[in-house]
Amino acid sequence: MKPLLIAFPGHEDFSRALARLLDADTAELALHRFPDGESLPRLPLPLEGRRVAFVCPLDRPDGKILSLLFAARTARELGAARVGLVAPYLAYMRQDRRFHDGESVTSIHFAELISGHFDWLATVDPHLHRHRSLDAIYAVPAMACHAAPAIAQWIAAHMPDAVLVGPDGESRQWVADIAGRIGAPWTTLMKTRSGDDVVGETLADAHLLQGRRPVIVDDILSTGRTVLEAARLLRAHGADAVTCVAVHAVFAGDAGEQLARHEVRVVTTNTIPHASNAIDIASDLAIGVGQLLS
Amino acid sequence: MKPLLIAFPGHEDFSRALARLLDADTAELALHRFPDGESLPRLPLPLEGRRVAFVCPLDRPDGKILSLLFAARTARELGAARVGLVAPYLAYMRQDRRFHDGESVTSIHFAELISGHFDWLATVDPHLHRHRSLDAIYAVPAMACHAAPAIAQWIAAHMPDAVLVGPDGESRQWVADIAGRIGAPWTTLMKTRSGDDVVGETLADAHLLQGRRPVIVDDILSTGRTVLEAARLLRAHGADAVTCVAVHAVFAGDAGEQLARHEVRVVTTNTIPHASNAIDIASDLAIGVGQLLS
Repeated sequence: MKPLLIAFPGHEDFSRALARLLDADTAELALHRFPDGESLPRLPLPLEGRRVAFVCPLDRPDGKILSLLFAARTARELGAARVGLVAPYLAYMRQDRRFHDGESVTSIHFAELISGHFDWLATVDPHLHRHRSLDAIYAVPAMACHAAPAIAQWIAAHMPDAVLVGPDGESRQWVADIAGRIGAPWTTLMKTRSGDDVVGETLADAHLLQGRRPVIVDDILSTGRTVLEAARLLRAHGADAVTCVAVHAVFAGDAGEQLARHEVRVVTTNTIPHASNAIDIASDLAIGVGQLLS
Repeated sequence: MKPLLIAFPGHEDFSRALARLLDADTAELALHRFPDGESLPRLPLPLEGRRVAFVCPLDRPDGKILSLLFAARTARELGAARVGLVAPYLAYMRQDRRFHDGESVTSIHFAELISGHFDWLATVDPHLHRHRSLDAIYAVPAMACHAAPAIAQWIAAHMPDAVLVGPDGESRQWVADIAGRIGAPWTTLMKTRSGDDVVGETLADAHLLQGRRPVIVDDILSTGRTVLEAARLLRAHGADAVTCVAVHAVFAGDAGEQLARHEVRVVTTNTIPHASNAIDIASDLAIGVGQLLS
């Protein structure tokens, strides 16, 4: 029996693309929301003896988690042989230690919840910082595919004259990786400090901008503040058009408006559905999902 | 060491009242919400060796559940001896069987989650229907206190000339209980059917309204549609002012506006903070919480 990918609402297209690549079946989960805010998932049938995976990126996780956990439990009750989770964007990766007394280490607690409900997890470029890999916090097989190859390919095809710019020191390795794949020049912005305070950012290699179009590359586009600050700095150094390529189109708050107002063109992968999606990572993700499904 | 009640934001007053009745300490949980929608609880310290209970009603449960589960895990990590949950309103009690193929039985899955994170649960009048008691679905000690005495007392004190009206047959026992405590007349509305469809409601004992003020009593005020329908019928039988007394002030969607527009006066207990709260159930709840804490 073919494995079955079950799409959460809004993720039918992505699920269908993944299913085609994996020779899997695909179906949709119906999610009812009651007026009082409670949720009720209804799963496609039959599931008896099937390998099942739910497809649902975990941006805005608090509102999604209950229906996701309900769905996993229900799949098991209805006889699914294995229940996996394809979450192209994985949440709660930032709070990876107790920064202040009494705080929750939510990355660990969230991983416990997911590990307790699913047999495996597949995602794209989780925000790993102090945790070295997903295995450090996920008790079930957890696979992270990388968007760097797809992003590099997109830049090479659409902006062969790009200079890649990492918005901060943390992004160094990631930017170097993408640039290396296509032989593009690259740099990262550096924070300038006065005592403990970050007072601004500087671009040491301004000469790289000569005759090239700057492309800021980042993993998560959340509030967009980092990208806006980087764009401002690039413009101060004479850059005309500024593009940002990011993996995860979270777009928190008014990020979309702010980026549009400051004429920053944003291109993202399709881990989270958004108008800026232009880079397809389904085929990269399919390789890992295929291994976990089998 | 005294037990510690930890209030979720917005529930400090209720928690303080409960703590006074129980000779417990009380403190506040700080809940940070990041722009991307993730939550981060920070607990008051120290918790080492303490009996702890979080105070948080579970209306709008989907947005609250993660911070609640994170908080419970964190309390345990920080050494709490026992971790309880005081949820004056308990969610996910309605979906108590699979009404359609493939649906989740969310009442059971939700109870599993809570039971997996807390040592005990205290609530007020959960919406029990097919589940006979909380023990049928909660694996940890779960205590439900009843609002009927406090409601009866309020009606006797403020509307001694009341006739109690149950909005449907289901409410029969509950209305009879409250009426019996204060010797008030009571009735319930009956659904009229045409085939399988409910076509309206009727009031068989219209004569009871003579010279008395009708008080609709219900457990959950959610969309308010049931109450509005009952008020319409009572008015058609000559009732002038209509009051509704409910336990849980969920007020889903535009319930508040609709009830105001139709001049239905609503009085609720303080299980969920709302402008309509007028009946204090802290002392009733304190009895059960005291047993669970000890």
